[in-house]
Amino acid sequence: MRIAIDAMGGDHAPHAHVESALAAAIEWPDTHIILVGNPGVLQPLIGNAPPSNVSIEAAMEIIGNDDEPVKAVRRKTDSSMVVAGRMVKEGRADAMISAGNTGALMALGLLVVGRLKGIERPGLAPMFPSLDNVGVLALDMGANMDAKPEHLLQYALMGSLYRNKVHGIKEPRVGLLNVGTEASKGSELTKAAYELLEKAPINFVGNVEARDVLDRSCDVLVCDGFSGNILLKAMEGAASTIFKLLREELTSSFKSKLAAGVLKPNFRRVRDRMDYNEHNGAPLLGVNGLVVKGHGSSDAKAMKTAIRQTRTAIGNGLIAALADEFSGK
Amino acid sequence: MRIAIDAMGGDHAPHAHVESALAAAIEWPDTHIILVGNPGVLQPLIGNAPPSNVSIEAAMEIIGNDDEPVKAVRRKTDSSMVVAGRMVKEGRADAMISAGNTGALMALGLLVVGRLKGIERPGLAPMFPSLDNVGVLALDMGANMDAKPEHLLQYALMGSLYRNKVHGIKEPRVGLLNVGTEASKGSELTKAAYELLEKAPINFVGNVEARDVLDRSCDVLVCDGFSGNILLKAMEGAASTIFKLLREELTSSFKSKLAAGVLKPNFRRVRDRMDYNEHNGAPLLGVNGLVVKGHGSSDAKAMKTAIRQTRTAIGNGLIAALADEFSGK
Repeated sequence: MRIAIDAMGGDHAPHAHVESALAAAIEWPDTHIILVGNPGVLQPLIGNAPPSNVSIEAAMEIIGNDDEPVKAVRRKTDSSMVVAGRMVKEGRADAMISAGNTGALMALGLLVVGRLKGIERPGLAPMFPSLDNVGVLALDMGANMDAKPEHLLQYALMGSLYRNKVHGIKEPRVGLLNVGTEASKGSELTKAAYELLEKAPINFVGNVEARDVLDRSCDVLVCDGFSGNILLKAMEGAASTIFKLLREELTSSFKSKLAAGVLKPNFRRVRDRMDYNEHNGAPLLGVNGLVVKGHGSSDAKAMKTAIRQTRTAIGNGLIAALADEFSGK
Repeated sequence: MRIAIDAMGGDHAPHAHVESALAAAIEWPDTHIILVGNPGVLQPLIGNAPPSNVSIEAAMEIIGNDDEPVKAVRRKTDSSMVVAGRMVKEGRADAMISAGNTGALMALGLLVVGRLKGIERPGLAPMFPSLDNVGVLALDMGANMDAKPEHLLQYALMGSLYRNKVHGIKEPRVGLLNVGTEASKGSELTKAAYELLEKAPINFVGNVEARDVLDRSCDVLVCDGFSGNILLKAMEGAASTIFKLLREELTSSFKSKLAAGVLKPNFRRVRDRMDYNEHNGAPLLGVNGLVVKGHGSSDAKAMKTAIRQTRTAIGNGLIAALADEFSGK
């Protein structure tokens, strides 16, 4: 299988991407990794004798985080992100991964790769960490700001298929993000979506409140892109604030510093378990090819996690299964 | 001033409410506290010689957390919550506080107390903790699930007035909860609201992302009730998960238990600083009287905080100022 990596997108590009590509190529000899970007930059990084299953695809432009997404995708046709997307579109890669501009990647999904037949709006589907470490796939996290009930239904179907194909969960429990557990709760959108989900051929477990997401009361969490983005960033914000406060408090005296020193490995484990990078690699579900978003701050380890997830999705025929599910609808 | 307390609503009713009422009556002799509820229950709790500025108003029914809000307010006309609301409506109390059923309290605001002239939808406005301990007033947190841009504008105006009158902030910075900081970001709702807020006579500082709320990048955070509820509960959920993981990790070995024991006061301070009860007392802004929601889990200390906030709001003529602001609109 062939995976194209946008080698120039993300906070730690291109070094983290090259490092993870080399490691992945050695671990998975059946996988060809294509680093997309400026060969003048990438060639020295991969060295003179890279594994034979690593190659470079030239792309001379870069889409930055400040670029306006749609404009950037339309104009920067020789950017690493757009070239990687075109490789997927043209069948020269089975998947692409980018840790770059999220908005641009979503635009690329629509404009370059194209929607799957039958899908109205693609959804971005990252994993949330959960107390039991299994994680919750949540979508949409920002691809579709003004969702309709039918979009949420498609997210539920796509998310179920993903968890089944990629994570091997037999009957994934699907929850609807809402302000209360009763069926009558919520906005016009969630009330209408609730009715559709109840009738759908999925394992719908009802409404899930934001405070229960990390307890993994469901395997797939369905929501509109606006609420999803608020959910994700609220959790990131709360976690970062608590760790900031802890650091402040635990370094406030000599005694507390000593005790905190002893607990360092414990704190690190807590941080790791709350770390979104542990489940790195959010598929943009609903586009006609495997387009995967890595966290902007992905390091080499996180990028390798994304590559692993992507391999599993390719290996289990995710896109063919999705196409099959929606082609008749 | 006279403050009616729904003595039967909330997890720690009626004990916490009676305890806080007695303490408040002693601390603030100018304030008359009216405990609304079953005298047979309340009389023994306040004892034979309560302060002269504590009294009981009889109400024989109770609205529980499982009661359907609108139905409960309509039918349980002799409930502690409805009687307290009626006292505000009839001018027999300057404010009411309830830690009971949130949905019922919002219904009570509309059905019993009534809207302020010129206000389309009241908004529930709790305080979020912030790193600098000043807090962020956020509204709406669930009164209005399908908000229009005009509602968000009214929230901005009411929130600004509240922070000015109650917290003494001169030109409160108003932020709009959104998925990105650029003006072009967000849903149809937030894009339209952004334009209205830009033109409004407030100190609008633009979009605020969910992860930056606790850094107090604004004094008033404006959002629709659905997103607000997601924001609030996502933060509560993340905080509770992290503290759960910390407890697990720090009691995992004898050594870690010892070190964690030394740090107990530090952990407690972090918890307190993230504690929503520290800023207890969320006004339902936009109703024609002061209706204040206490957290369901309010203990006596939290209830006293709510009473303190309410006193300040009454003392500074909040409702008259709000009526003045909106009467011509």
